[in-house]
Amino acid sequence: MREGIDVQVCEVGLRDGLQGLHTFFPTEAKKQWIEIEAAAGMPAIEVCSFVPTSVSIQFTDAQESVAHALAQPGLHVMALIPNLKGAERALPTGVHQLNYVTSVSEEHNLRNVRRTVEESLTEFGRVAALRNSKPEWKKTRICGAMATALGCTIKGQVETKDVLRMGERYLKLGADELAIADTVGYASPRQVKAMFQEAARAFPGVPLTAHFHDTRGLGLANVVAALEAGCRRFDASLAGLGGCPFAPGATGNIVMDDLIFLLESMGLKTGVALSKLLEARAIIRANLKDEPLYGAIAKAGLPKGFRPASPLPLAAE
Amino acid sequence: MREGIDVQVCEVGLRDGLQGLHTFFPTEAKKQWIEIEAAAGMPAIEVCSFVPTSVSIQFTDAQESVAHALAQPGLHVMALIPNLKGAERALPTGVHQLNYVTSVSEEHNLRNVRRTVEESLTEFGRVAALRNSKPEWKKTRICGAMATALGCTIKGQVETKDVLRMGERYLKLGADELAIADTVGYASPRQVKAMFQEAARAFPGVPLTAHFHDTRGLGLANVVAALEAGCRRFDASLAGLGGCPFAPGATGNIVMDDLIFLLESMGLKTGVALSKLLEARAIIRANLKDEPLYGAIAKAGLPKGFRPASPLPLAAE
Repeated sequence: MREGIDVQVCEVGLRDGLQGLHTFFPTEAKKQWIEIEAAAGMPAIEVCSFVPTSVSIQFTDAQESVAHALAQPGLHVMALIPNLKGAERALPTGVHQLNYVTSVSEEHNLRNVRRTVEESLTEFGRVAALRNSKPEWKKTRICGAMATALGCTIKGQVETKDVLRMGERYLKLGADELAIADTVGYASPRQVKAMFQEAARAFPGVPLTAHFHDTRGLGLANVVAALEAGCRRFDASLAGLGGCPFAPGATGNIVMDDLIFLLESMGLKTGVALSKLLEARAIIRANLKDEPLYGAIAKAGLPKGFRPASPLPLAAE
Repeated sequence: MREGIDVQVCEVGLRDGLQGLHTFFPTEAKKQWIEIEAAAGMPAIEVCSFVPTSVSIQFTDAQESVAHALAQPGLHVMALIPNLKGAERALPTGVHQLNYVTSVSEEHNLRNVRRTVEESLTEFGRVAALRNSKPEWKKTRICGAMATALGCTIKGQVETKDVLRMGERYLKLGADELAIADTVGYASPRQVKAMFQEAARAFPGVPLTAHFHDTRGLGLANVVAALEAGCRRFDASLAGLGGCPFAPGATGNIVMDDLIFLLESMGLKTGVALSKLLEARAIIRANLKDEPLYGAIAKAGLPKGFRPASPLPLAAE
């Protein structure tokens, strides 16, 4: 984690927000988005997914996005990889971190990536082996993400023990860190607190990221619960980009702008200058004219006399 | 608090949600709203404000609303009173509870009710004396609500000690309970937790209600923080009715439907059947065609296999 911050937020809008859209988000706009957020102090961005072009046209410029992000000073650059082929394309870019996703729910994994959980984990082992095969690739961290870890639209409830077992497998196979994702927005604060407490006990010293969706309105409440359990890494997307395809009109990822407000107002330094971050919304608006943008702070403004926790550059606001 | 529930929610949409609207919400629709919510298991409703007709045309039917609410079995019926005159009109109705509001911020109180804080509290003393003047009126509880207790759009930050001092004054003057209101949506979870912990210490045994607005997106996160501090009474409005007049497009009260989902998913019994409660949204939509309605659960639906905490009637869903 970058020095001087209490919580590491990671912008996932460029990947999770854009992946489901049918419009190609122009490469130049992606670069602008990355630049503005990096300048605002964003510590980490997941800039793309290395999926085959046949699956999504959104990331045909994956290499270019990664290269541009790597040029931003101090930015931790991540990319999603769906399989070994993705890792083969991603590793030569020098990206700082690769995120690999398996659903804890067998049914969801089959539908999402057409593989059993076991097949997905075996593939992850190959990814780890590839990463370890060249000294210059060893600098790239790999994170094992667990989707539907807090509930599944197909299966319903998901067992904590299955999440812990998958985390253990990931680590044995070579994962450097783990992510727990409420992919469908089913989680509630009590469940989140228990899950992150158990995961922290089971995986001491392993960086653990919370990836929450706001589909049922509890996204930021779940962040508070995860904070109580010691979690200090959160994914979010600017303006909440990334609606849920199964729930029309429902929001997707938690809103980055509101997350920053939440954390800074709780005295937790994020390093992000909120007023600068908000400027990046204009890039989304200009390139996705019909997409709903979310965010309470963007509408209501900061409280009078608000003092953010981050001394720089937020203090300049 | 009603037997068998863990948390008492109070519907304030009929008062806080309607008071700022320029359209008169028909009396029959108000009655329907009250009926459906009472049937859904809502334990408490603030049905109106006893303001002069010159101030608002919304509550010309205040007596009728109270009478209709009192006819619902088991419902705790509340009304807001702005002054002694309001109490004189309200007490003969037999309403169960009167809520009286003073802003902790002097500036806000002056602008809101054109009185100093001292003048407001003196008036509250007269209200308490009136309530105590007749044996049949003594059954009506009086609650001292503290507005802008967690921040003020004019003053900015508000001191906790000023809130505690006002609470003490209220109790000395005869208040049976207290409410702490984040009138302008400035509060953050850490602040809320500290405030409710201090208030619980300062006023042991006194029922304490949290009244949060979602203006900056932290409403439900603040509920989680207040729960951690032991608070078990929350105001909210169906569909989040009641936008903030100073922040166009911003939400007002926290959304009752989402609050019920939050609480029940945390294993806390509210006694409210969410699916029945959601039916009442149609009444608002039919009578306020241009008003934005909020709520994530209304859009996304309940999680698959969701088990509410309330055994009845929620379990029947």
